Amino acid sequence: MHERRTHDTSNCSIARTLEVVGEKWTILILREALYGVRRFDDFEAVLHCPRNLLSERLRKLVDEGILSAEWYQEPGHRRRREYVLTRKGERLIPAVIGLMEWGDEFVADSEGPATYINHVGCGNRIHLELRCDQGHLIEHCAEFTIEHGPAFKLLTDAPS
Amino acid sequence: MHERRTHDTSNCSIARTLEVVGEKWTILILREALYGVRRFDDFEAVLHCPRNLLSERLRKLVDEGILSAEWYQEPGHRRRREYVLTRKGERLIPAVIGLMEWGDEFVADSEGPATYINHVGCGNRIHLELRCDQGHLIEHCAEFTIEHGPAFKLLTDAPS
Repeated sequence: MHERRTHDTSNCSIARTLEVVGEKWTILILREALYGVRRFDDFEAVLHCPRNLLSERLRKLVDEGILSAEWYQEPGHRRRREYVLTRKGERLIPAVIGLMEWGDEFVADSEGPATYINHVGCGNRIHLELRCDQGHLIEHCAEFTIEHGPAFKLLTDAPS
Repeated sequence: MHERRTHDTSNCSIARTLEVVGEKWTILILREALYGVRRFDDFEAVLHCPRNLLSERLRKLVDEGILSAEWYQEPGHRRRREYVLTRKGERLIPAVIGLMEWGDEFVADSEGPATYINHVGCGNRIHLELRCDQGHLIEHCAEFTIEHGPAFKLLTDAPS
């Protein structure tokens, strides 16, 4: 695998995703959005993070199109915003559930997980599966093979 | 969802997982391990991160049982270590692939992804699916329902 040294990794999709959401508070905001939290004060009350940091992270998630900020107004109160996962935001949830499943398996309290996510239709637990497009269930990394995609590039200064 | 304010989130499996692997270089080390990199010098050559940082992150991943450090020796060279994903480490790969899929969809170069992961058995692309234990494919967060697990706790100072 020395060959990997010659690859230009600057367009790696994992690294680029981490540039957008690779920060603890951002992932925890997504967790709360997944659990149904929508309002600034509720995010703050659950996360106990500094207000300016929360404000900055929410703004970034809105700018990236991961959360949408929608105005709402209750009678007798000023207008406020609600933050709701967009479809682009929902597409991050499998990664978040991957972190959750690992935590449930390896670092949970002895009693078990604090939270389960179930299917609203049938009530059964939700879990992640790795499958190929032909439907085979993949259980080990040894079943992976890596292929260069259309944006694959070599480093321009790599030894030829 | 005001109720969420009263939950003790200290044993959240997502937050606990982020404490172990929630740092950019750690995820990128896991990416390289997934792509078959095993040696310190190869990790360094691909990641271009400071040696002391790489050394510290690898040590933490070994201490956590996510990578195993195995000695190898080539004739005429001193003994070195190879870092290999353990089963516990492999269980993080779905989360890493979740980040990759999001990046491929939303922040890839215009040509497309840099890398594909295929099933070695049949050659088809590998992807993540959310399914419930009864096998239903879950496509939207609106299909989730949250249930308290056995380690669920309320904050002790929460309003009753």
